[in-house]
Amino acid sequence: MAEYKVPLKDMSFLLYEVFKADDMWQKLPKLAEQVDKDTAQAILQECAKIAEQELAPIARQGDEIGVSFSDGVVTTAPGYKEAFNTYAEGGWTALGGDVNYGGMGMPKMLTALHEEMLCSADISFALYPVLTAGAALSLAKHGSDELKERYLTRMYSGDWSASMCLTEAHAGSDLGIIRTKAIPQDDGSYSITGNKIFITGGEHDLTENIVHLVLAKLPDAPAGPRGISLFLVPKFNVNDDETLGEHNKVSCGSIEHKMGIHASATCVMNFDESQGYLIGELNKGLACMFTMMNFERIGVGIQGLGAAVRSYQNALEYAKDRLQGRALDSKVKGVKNPAQEADSIMVHGDVRRMLLNMKALNEGSRALSSYIAMQLDYATYGEGEEQQKGEALAALMTPVAKAFFTDIGFENTVTGQQVFGGHGFIREWGQEQLVRDARITQIYEGTNGIQAMDLLVRKVASSKGVLLKVFTDEVSAYIDDNQNEAGMAEFIAPLTEAVNDLTELTTELLTKSEANINELGASANDYLHVFGYTAMAYIWARMAQVSLTKQDSNGECGDNFYQSKLHTARYYFTRVLPRRISLIAAAKSGCDCMFDINDELF
Amino acid sequence: MAEYKVPLKDMSFLLYEVFKADDMWQKLPKLAEQVDKDTAQAILQECAKIAEQELAPIARQGDEIGVSFSDGVVTTAPGYKEAFNTYAEGGWTALGGDVNYGGMGMPKMLTALHEEMLCSADISFALYPVLTAGAALSLAKHGSDELKERYLTRMYSGDWSASMCLTEAHAGSDLGIIRTKAIPQDDGSYSITGNKIFITGGEHDLTENIVHLVLAKLPDAPAGPRGISLFLVPKFNVNDDETLGEHNKVSCGSIEHKMGIHASATCVMNFDESQGYLIGELNKGLACMFTMMNFERIGVGIQGLGAAVRSYQNALEYAKDRLQGRALDSKVKGVKNPAQEADSIMVHGDVRRMLLNMKALNEGSRALSSYIAMQLDYATYGEGEEQQKGEALAALMTPVAKAFFTDIGFENTVTGQQVFGGHGFIREWGQEQLVRDARITQIYEGTNGIQAMDLLVRKVASSKGVLLKVFTDEVSAYIDDNQNEAGMAEFIAPLTEAVNDLTELTTELLTKSEANINELGASANDYLHVFGYTAMAYIWARMAQVSLTKQDSNGECGDNFYQSKLHTARYYFTRVLPRRISLIAAAKSGCDCMFDINDELF
Repeated sequence: MAEYKVPLKDMSFLLYEVFKADDMWQKLPKLAEQVDKDTAQAILQECAKIAEQELAPIARQGDEIGVSFSDGVVTTAPGYKEAFNTYAEGGWTALGGDVNYGGMGMPKMLTALHEEMLCSADISFALYPVLTAGAALSLAKHGSDELKERYLTRMYSGDWSASMCLTEAHAGSDLGIIRTKAIPQDDGSYSITGNKIFITGGEHDLTENIVHLVLAKLPDAPAGPRGISLFLVPKFNVNDDETLGEHNKVSCGSIEHKMGIHASATCVMNFDESQGYLIGELNKGLACMFTMMNFERIGVGIQGLGAAVRSYQNALEYAKDRLQGRALDSKVKGVKNPAQEADSIMVHGDVRRMLLNMKALNEGSRALSSYIAMQLDYATYGEGEEQQKGEALAALMTPVAKAFFTDIGFENTVTGQQVFGGHGFIREWGQEQLVRDARITQIYEGTNGIQAMDLLVRKVASSKGVLLKVFTDEVSAYIDDNQNEAGMAEFIAPLTEAVNDLTELTTELLTKSEANINELGASANDYLHVFGYTAMAYIWARMAQVSLTKQDSNGECGDNFYQSKLHTARYYFTRVLPRRISLIAAAKSGCDCMFDINDELF
Repeated sequence: MAEYKVPLKDMSFLLYEVFKADDMWQKLPKLAEQVDKDTAQAILQECAKIAEQELAPIARQGDEIGVSFSDGVVTTAPGYKEAFNTYAEGGWTALGGDVNYGGMGMPKMLTALHEEMLCSADISFALYPVLTAGAALSLAKHGSDELKERYLTRMYSGDWSASMCLTEAHAGSDLGIIRTKAIPQDDGSYSITGNKIFITGGEHDLTENIVHLVLAKLPDAPAGPRGISLFLVPKFNVNDDETLGEHNKVSCGSIEHKMGIHASATCVMNFDESQGYLIGELNKGLACMFTMMNFERIGVGIQGLGAAVRSYQNALEYAKDRLQGRALDSKVKGVKNPAQEADSIMVHGDVRRMLLNMKALNEGSRALSSYIAMQLDYATYGEGEEQQKGEALAALMTPVAKAFFTDIGFENTVTGQQVFGGHGFIREWGQEQLVRDARITQIYEGTNGIQAMDLLVRKVASSKGVLLKVFTDEVSAYIDDNQNEAGMAEFIAPLTEAVNDLTELTTELLTKSEANINELGASANDYLHVFGYTAMAYIWARMAQVSLTKQDSNGECGDNFYQSKLHTARYYFTRVLPRRISLIAAAKSGCDCMFDINDELF
């Protein structure tokens, strides 16, 4: 397996050349205090070292050995505790945190790239700090000062980690029907009782305490999602002097044996009159949780990207080294590698197709996730119209980031495995682990089917297309501004067609849904992918535009990086973007063929 | 996990209603002696019992425990030896075998369905007998009478199994560069020395002897594929009285640890001056091997189908049981399941989409594989034009069966896993095993990229389109004959468009390839899938046509089976067939965007 190398040059290209993040940081007062280009570069470089040198090397043994469970105790795989300590001591657990409680207050544009590095190195490891950061966001936004002082500071310091306890055996996608109960106590705390499943990092040996954020209902709460409250339940209670007190009545009943992410503890958590503390208002638990969700869901999208980036690097190294067969055009153009008995498999069109699909989709995903992270930063740190626009775009594109990046991320891990041929199926090469690890990203934090419904029903249809228009207006303005620029026609023309088709498809689906709402459910998945490929085309056009400025009069970029970008952009528009055509045809074909058939005929 | 139920009704529908296999069997003298409808039905029913009752139950523990290796000895997982004995005692190892040596001489149309059952139950188990049957085909066709009397009879009896030893560490897709040597001995045998990897069933404890078919080269053999010969190397030499003699100098050096098919032994085999016997002519080894390849490659396609069928059955049961959320149209049409707190997830359009994709592609694959098996039967048992046509279609469609069925088979296992949500990722449910087991089918027996090249370069382009025309002429004749039939317009119209587009695409690619042969390599994968979806449309039209005859004047079929077929056909044409549009766009976009970019820019 290739040694993991963080694509730092691509990250800088996106931050400073494509999205001018440094200008944005300077402009927004709350960010200007925390970050500038030099700080950001130092952070990315140091994080790259951790990912490459500390985390990537433990991933294989993490997969083989996994976490173990005995009598309620969860033990992580060899090397994880040391790696976590190094990570926490480096201050990385505080990276995106609230500066008032010891966080570093870095923008999402940076923490997103940091997450990609962690996930390329080892998704299993990444989940421990990434979920803690997600829980911290919710606590920072909705928790009382007292809770924040007591818990948030220790989460940022890396002393403690966190889990999010949502799912129950009968309630996953449908949280409205959870049964975990919260009984108010005289001291203002709550007694929490119930069983949660699929709790990532619910129990482990990396930190001395674990802070559980738990969804539960009061006995008299309204039915459904509007009766859900959010509670903080520490594994160990905390004394007033901040030392750890007695073990709370919460325990890990078992861990799951899974397809992948073997080094991540997926726990059954039993709360048995545990002492808990309300976060935010009663019955507003889902809203508190969703604060975190936009950040988490983009984070899950980035997990898919992370695995795919690693898979690409491995596949490329393998393809260059592997000699097998001769190029198809050997008879016409002569043998390419006459010194050896076969050519590198890079000569084969189908191998190039596989590698370029991965390259175009990975770089496109990184760029699009940076764009969405920028919207989250505007939403968090901006003001006025800019802030509103950021919020709108983040809300619209969060489900796309989660589902689209993980669907194509999984596809890319499978493609990278395919490049290896038989060796891709053998565990020791590491390629198949990426497939197994990436697979969960399409499922958890809301399945990709749920994300598609979120996009088309809750975001696009509920806003009667207004949210979508925020995005398509930006793209249309970009097209107007740049369509006559030299060299841009080959990108602007297909982008124009794609965005027009997206608008037309949206109108058609919303119109049809007035007569039959099932049109939305039936088309949601195809719609999300049409949106994804179109949005990625917009970002690829912007990347191509920057790269074109580096060309000399012969059409050559002095720097291979930009030359490669231009070629990859062309590949994206030529070979990848046409995927949207079939998706549109399917989305437009209506829901009758799905709903006319009775359940017993399946 | 649902209990596996063999889709016997669909199998009978295909054999007797769609393809009139019983008529074909009666018509072909060599088959008429062996098989009629009653025999065939008895075989399918008995095989279903074995698959459902003996094989399906051992698959999970086979995955968890796997094969083990110690000091050259390979031990299969608990239950495998007993299951193999039951299987062999039932006579199943002789099913497709040459009647002159103890085989049952059953047609491929039956053995293909038998293979599907085995693979739905447990691909790992299936590989032991299926590879033995493949090796037996090659031996039956090319071996001397003496070799056949000595070895073939015992392979059919199930006493002995076989392996195919092709791949070496440096030579997989490119067999021309193998290094295993065969030195002629005075007694007419050969001394075989070399190392083979990825040898399925190379060593195990299921049978008392293992017959290895080994590709090797004589010292003075021509370079490349034309210097390859095929040898039979038994694990134990066989005495003249047919008892086992001494252990031949062949040993298993290790077994691979793999992503899936854990219960199948994937061996490194070391031949160290092993005694071997030539099969067929010297330097014609590849041709002897390819006798088997057409059968094997369809068999691998069927493995993908087998896993996908199981995944569908599990996902359907889960979807019907799982209550989560309410239908989108609850507010308009009322709650569907008011007695409980949520509806079955069958109400959601996206779940129906996933299930119907699986259903349409699985039933389409079974039908298309039956069609191709029928061509193989014509090629093997037919005469004159019928035989030639069968050979042409089998040659053309074998790579499609292998690559298309395994690509969509893998897709379907992933889809079936997605229906389970988080539970799909947990090992105990069994859904994720199907994904891991199916994944290898896209890789071995020639990667799907190699299959695509085989189709477009070796079959379509080398014949200048003549082979393809055998198929498109048949479809065109079908369209001409049936386009005015009542109810067929909705199927015939898109089929006509699809087959015309395929012809046009072929012409365009062949024309462009005259200037640049790389156009074929660049488009091969997309082309194969266009072909697959188009061929499947033809078969779906034929299935729809039969089902239409069962409709009464109200458009209702008395039997749910036919009603379901009609709905599924409509789903296929409406939602699945449009996939070809994007593939055509990609295939037509040319190879420049893949080859203009230098290797160092990847």
